[in-house]
Amino acid sequence: MANSSKPISRTAPPDSRFLRSLSCVESDAFSIAKFNDWFDDRMRHHHFEIDQIAFSDLQKWGFESSTGNLRHESGKFFQIQGISVETNFGGIKQWQQPIINQPEIGFLGFIAKEFDGVLHFLMQAKMEPGNIRCIQLAPTLQATKSNYTRVHQGKSPPFLQYFRDNPDRRVLVDVLQSEQGGRFLRKRNRNIIIEVPSGESLPENPDYIWLTLGQIQKLLRRDNVINMDARTVLSCISYHRVTSSTTENPSIHSMDEILTWFTELKCCYDLDVQSIPLRDARPWLMDSQRIFHPEGKYFEVIAVRVAADNREVSSWTQPLVKPCQEGLIAFVTKDFQGEPHFLIQGKVEAGNFDIVEMAPTVQCINGDYRQAPLDSRPPFIDYVLNASSAQILFDTMQSEEGGRFFREENRNLILRASPDFPAELPANYIWISHTQLKDFIRFNNIVNIQARCLLSAFGAE
Amino acid sequence: MANSSKPISRTAPPDSRFLRSLSCVESDAFSIAKFNDWFDDRMRHHHFEIDQIAFSDLQKWGFESSTGNLRHESGKFFQIQGISVETNFGGIKQWQQPIINQPEIGFLGFIAKEFDGVLHFLMQAKMEPGNIRCIQLAPTLQATKSNYTRVHQGKSPPFLQYFRDNPDRRVLVDVLQSEQGGRFLRKRNRNIIIEVPSGESLPENPDYIWLTLGQIQKLLRRDNVINMDARTVLSCISYHRVTSSTTENPSIHSMDEILTWFTELKCCYDLDVQSIPLRDARPWLMDSQRIFHPEGKYFEVIAVRVAADNREVSSWTQPLVKPCQEGLIAFVTKDFQGEPHFLIQGKVEAGNFDIVEMAPTVQCINGDYRQAPLDSRPPFIDYVLNASSAQILFDTMQSEEGGRFFREENRNLILRASPDFPAELPANYIWISHTQLKDFIRFNNIVNIQARCLLSAFGAE
Repeated sequence: MANSSKPISRTAPPDSRFLRSLSCVESDAFSIAKFNDWFDDRMRHHHFEIDQIAFSDLQKWGFESSTGNLRHESGKFFQIQGISVETNFGGIKQWQQPIINQPEIGFLGFIAKEFDGVLHFLMQAKMEPGNIRCIQLAPTLQATKSNYTRVHQGKSPPFLQYFRDNPDRRVLVDVLQSEQGGRFLRKRNRNIIIEVPSGESLPENPDYIWLTLGQIQKLLRRDNVINMDARTVLSCISYHRVTSSTTENPSIHSMDEILTWFTELKCCYDLDVQSIPLRDARPWLMDSQRIFHPEGKYFEVIAVRVAADNREVSSWTQPLVKPCQEGLIAFVTKDFQGEPHFLIQGKVEAGNFDIVEMAPTVQCINGDYRQAPLDSRPPFIDYVLNASSAQILFDTMQSEEGGRFFREENRNLILRASPDFPAELPANYIWISHTQLKDFIRFNNIVNIQARCLLSAFGAE
Repeated sequence: MANSSKPISRTAPPDSRFLRSLSCVESDAFSIAKFNDWFDDRMRHHHFEIDQIAFSDLQKWGFESSTGNLRHESGKFFQIQGISVETNFGGIKQWQQPIINQPEIGFLGFIAKEFDGVLHFLMQAKMEPGNIRCIQLAPTLQATKSNYTRVHQGKSPPFLQYFRDNPDRRVLVDVLQSEQGGRFLRKRNRNIIIEVPSGESLPENPDYIWLTLGQIQKLLRRDNVINMDARTVLSCISYHRVTSSTTENPSIHSMDEILTWFTELKCCYDLDVQSIPLRDARPWLMDSQRIFHPEGKYFEVIAVRVAADNREVSSWTQPLVKPCQEGLIAFVTKDFQGEPHFLIQGKVEAGNFDIVEMAPTVQCINGDYRQAPLDSRPPFIDYVLNASSAQILFDTMQSEEGGRFFREENRNLILRASPDFPAELPANYIWISHTQLKDFIRFNNIVNIQARCLLSAFGAE
């Protein structure tokens, strides 16, 4: 790769093409009815069985003798280890927990292509062992480095070559993004969208389908259809001008005011995370089938056997993380001079790469939010739960990544603030405009995955 | 602290005020001649003696028995530990080294105030044990957390109260910035500029002086006067519109193209850094007075005794890092449609917080660049060393932080590319405009400290 000093030309600003794709829901070549037929067909086609097994029945996975960490014999993929956490954020100041350590940066990538002048995105009907439905719609490519360097000696993932060693690719989105800071230790993936020329034909594959952004938006209104990996990549698309200009769109705070607020939080919140052997994580317990918290809280680590026919290998065993409750992820929004604003929470999570990330107004995935005692209920949770139906812009169940999480789904809500919404906010909350959030998403490790995934459902309203 | 939802008003855009301050070199109240008198006086006034001592003569510092790490008995300030590094960046793929671990985020802060409508910045004549000259000009406040929480039980640093617990402060700059990735393990400081109302009078102190940006720029043309901490904070000032807009200033690459280039580097370069006991770092050696590389390369760790009268405590001992050679830090620049552009190197350093940072065109501080064999000379070093005097915009010696480094100075060069400068660049180099660089500096851990400090000498040319 070599950069010449010439400007890289663009045939048209990508934003206007994204907007056109967003406005296209039905087309000659495609209807939602046809999609339904295809999706049902893929669902029937992909036979798979999943069984919870004892840890001792895991193949190629085992507990490391010196630490008790649960890891693959290759040392690749991921491992479950322990961490000891100290922070001055939130109600609990010190704890230990199991966490997924996956230091490799993987690809979450879409191939985009124009059909009749409209950008379409190649989505894959993908089986994952933790999926609530057998299959969900994933990006074109979803591969860890162990995956695509074929540590498991299976087939290379389809379409990989368009992303790697392809100097002609035209990049529409390319940014590292964080994953769940409560479950992963500083994990990041490369969120990328590349475009191939409209004249180029790609290999046919019955598991892949071209969809416009408008069609994907429509499918996002269904429960558990668009997977987490697709949602995070889609959230990186800006529908406004790609070059940032905060003067053109009205906003409650300037970018510099928000950056100052963010710096202040990073300086006032301490986060000290030390790796510890999994077996030393207190008060977590283990039996033959699961690693669990004695009060039944948070999540369990389990082991499963999977038999499937549409993966690079046809059967395998692996650990999964199984949540102990359904979660709630919600944005409160309001308009300011016609521009939508989101109430952002600066949130510390143990696995965060840089202490604080911008999270949704309410993010409760690690505890039963309905049971939280009155004096320690997270801010705005009752406001969100008691919102009137007229306030609700978006309300679906969405899944977390089925390759790591066992049937984890969270309620995803976007709602409008009522006129009586409090003007005074806790110090770690701030209103940020849609345009500004999209600007922050262009930089890595600022907007967290829950916020990004929820934003993917917010078009150009 | 609570954010109300009202827009925060600004009396005038800060950029125009920065520009006015930059254009003001002499004023009624101040002349460079007067400054010289004051500085000479402070130099005479601040008697201090520094002696290299044996490690065994360190007070309150010692080697931890289990690791051999050199640390303060309180566990605060900083420690010298070992790291083991593996990377695919550069010629050396694996090594071990001592490194400074200072996990606390400290303050590097200026107080600004308008005099006769012109912003002035309160600078301190500060003695540091490693300074080449007895004193250098530092920011108003330069304090680690151990410092300002008074672990050494000395006096609280002057002016601290303007930065902490001061809800009325008006923030002009506030961003976390990295320090030397070759010497520090992920160290960051809070670079902050606050403004006090022009009517407010501050305590008088003979070691402090109000200077305009134009005066500071003039002093930057002298060797070793403006210290590193001041330079990094000053680099955070944007002279163009504060709200970013890359469409208004011409640039060779768009912000998104640069971000894509940056993501690509973060994904293609691996950096695995493991903490190890200092005593296990090979092939480093230790005698009674120093920790050193057997080939006399890189740097040494030494111990010194300091006796001074203008610090929070009047005498102390501490470790310092002493470089084995003078370094070279250089930017090649060129104009594109009237906008200055800088040739940026994406550089991996062991202590980087996020793998790659944007570094100057040439950055050689860890080896004798004049001696590098022809086949492994860093890119552009000969171009820089052979530049004609007509190309040179800036050429001075500047010091690294005297609180950690013993008499470390590096040649700081900014030069114009000649018409025959190569158009094809190595993959990890890219042209970035001055405006764009200032935008990147608003976000933490993107532009490295060498690049920032050099940029501080580049006004609004």
